[in-house]
Amino acid sequence: MPVVTDEADGSQDALLVRVAAGGHVGWGECEAAPLPSIAAFICPMSHGVCRPVADSVLGQTLESPEDIARIASAVAYNSMDLLQAPHTFSGVEMALWDILGKMRSEPVWRLLGYDKSHPKTPYASVLFGDTPQETLERARDARSRSFRAAKFGWGPIGRGSVAADAEHFVAAREGLGQDGILLVDTGQIFIEDVERAAARLPAMEKANVLWFEEPFHASALEAYGALAGRSAKVRLAGGEGAHNESMAKQLIDYGGIGYVQIDCGRIGGIGPSKAVADYAVAKGVTFVNHTFTSHLALSASLQPYAGFGDHEICEYPAMPKPLAIAIAANHLERDAQGQVAAPEAPGLGIAVAPAALRPYLQQVEISVGGRRLYETPRL
Amino acid sequence: MPVVTDEADGSQDALLVRVAAGGHVGWGECEAAPLPSIAAFICPMSHGVCRPVADSVLGQTLESPEDIARIASAVAYNSMDLLQAPHTFSGVEMALWDILGKMRSEPVWRLLGYDKSHPKTPYASVLFGDTPQETLERARDARSRSFRAAKFGWGPIGRGSVAADAEHFVAAREGLGQDGILLVDTGQIFIEDVERAAARLPAMEKANVLWFEEPFHASALEAYGALAGRSAKVRLAGGEGAHNESMAKQLIDYGGIGYVQIDCGRIGGIGPSKAVADYAVAKGVTFVNHTFTSHLALSASLQPYAGFGDHEICEYPAMPKPLAIAIAANHLERDAQGQVAAPEAPGLGIAVAPAALRPYLQQVEISVGGRRLYETPRL
Repeated sequence: MPVVTDEADGSQDALLVRVAAGGHVGWGECEAAPLPSIAAFICPMSHGVCRPVADSVLGQTLESPEDIARIASAVAYNSMDLLQAPHTFSGVEMALWDILGKMRSEPVWRLLGYDKSHPKTPYASVLFGDTPQETLERARDARSRSFRAAKFGWGPIGRGSVAADAEHFVAAREGLGQDGILLVDTGQIFIEDVERAAARLPAMEKANVLWFEEPFHASALEAYGALAGRSAKVRLAGGEGAHNESMAKQLIDYGGIGYVQIDCGRIGGIGPSKAVADYAVAKGVTFVNHTFTSHLALSASLQPYAGFGDHEICEYPAMPKPLAIAIAANHLERDAQGQVAAPEAPGLGIAVAPAALRPYLQQVEISVGGRRLYETPRL
Repeated sequence: MPVVTDEADGSQDALLVRVAAGGHVGWGECEAAPLPSIAAFICPMSHGVCRPVADSVLGQTLESPEDIARIASAVAYNSMDLLQAPHTFSGVEMALWDILGKMRSEPVWRLLGYDKSHPKTPYASVLFGDTPQETLERARDARSRSFRAAKFGWGPIGRGSVAADAEHFVAAREGLGQDGILLVDTGQIFIEDVERAAARLPAMEKANVLWFEEPFHASALEAYGALAGRSAKVRLAGGEGAHNESMAKQLIDYGGIGYVQIDCGRIGGIGPSKAVADYAVAKGVTFVNHTFTSHLALSASLQPYAGFGDHEICEYPAMPKPLAIAIAANHLERDAQGQVAAPEAPGLGIAVAPAALRPYLQQVEISVGGRRLYETPRL
């Protein structure tokens, strides 16, 4: 976007990945800081296991899901000391699935072994208002746009008193109606302070909040586990910060979450997300996508659990910036029942729209020792 | 270095951080891929919690250890979605301690609350040879250079048979002598395959290996825990991949390691390393530094446990590349007993040598939208 603000809205910029192979072109999107992610693709090798992501991707054979898994393993090993690598590879991996689906004329979810793409109930992701009245209005607005579920996040929650937060929960429930699915996201505000987070539980329970998302830092497993043990009804949700399969599994095993939220644009793509989805089923935990950007990212994030009929909630970017809308030529619209599903079309089923995107394209140039390592390709 | 090879040697390049504050200059070193780490310092903001590291550092007050902790918390929160940020900030944080020590004319370990810098027994870090004979010769060489302890890593281990690996362990023990401290590092080669790792335990036990380092991927806590439960004598070691305090604590709590190895150049600097050291003491685990680069990084990595008399092993870069030697004008030499200690001099006690470094300096230029965001500063 021409202006990027400090609001917690990840759709203000975008890093798209275009991969060409075997006469096909696939697209993916990293949910990541663009410049460091580009640098992680093209940087000079530091040593044997601190190599740029490109080293493990370019020139590889792509004929089957096993090839994607093989490339992913190579990245994980060859770039184990390059912290940004999983964020970079996430967009690449999506694009590889997109290509493979196009090669086989199959949607990605079928390549993952599913027979059917089950419709999901999208929740509108909105931010808490600065006042309970604003929160009430935003909840009414979500309802008026036919969202049966809404997630309220960030804003003032955790920054003031327990009573002040409670007013926001009451307002959100009132605006959404008694039958609405109400979700709360506190954006890691309690760091690892279990007592401060637990103090919000009674008001959440009273407002019939289904899940309490990201109370703590993504790695604060012990705090997650302690809070989960103290909540009778409200289940914890988390996982968007997971940049590998293990981190998500640990939130399930040690953190006691009831909902695991995976962003395909961060965890390394669709393959590891599918592995987490299968693990969640085995552990009685519900899988949910994390998506705050384009419908390209949305399609990718629905694939890993498209075949699960009973994991039916999905995140749906309710108020994306114009850039995020411009990325996709076709969108995953809600059906008459207000639901969305991973598309039936080959690959990810989303056409990227170069003409609409071009006005947003940023010219990036990176040189080391007089050698040009990167410049923005033509769109 | 003019040529960077794919050997597992992290001293082939370096990212130094120079911070100026209050008339003092401090230095730090990231153990990280330079280009993505630079990008994470200067990239455009993506949204409120995906900001460049510079935003939370430049212009801040620096008068006490509490200021460093406050800046670190700001980075953790403001850059929570920027994966590379902890690697970038690690070098910055070291430099802040260096400045604070110089301001107060105190070594960093004293600022951390220690009365004394206890000498440590350094182990030589060497790679396994391609053949057991080569491993034997390297072990003899370490011994001849008066190293009482040696760690053998990577090479062919885990790539061939259990019997082939056992020959290397026998050779290492023979070369080092019966009284030497023998450590083994397998560099994540078993990914998360507990059986394959466990198959190496009997031969390690027979060779009296003190620790078995990084059998698995840094996040594979369950595999760590399972292997720890199956090892009677050989303790697990790990932690170098930790890029925050929580990850290191999890390896202790869920992974069952006996030695926690922290790289100040990755975990976010000296502050979180000290927190891990204190946690290790409380849990009966031994703290060890992880250092494979310069003596600037070595000094930083010794500070967090300088005051522990009974955590006495330390990693010591035994065969660094000329670049890593050029970084420091003074070096932490072993004393008559073959031991090293964090220096008594103010700050980190290491003078960086611009003249010696200059031949290695790489000119890096990064532009976005026609605006120059970074170019290598003058040395």
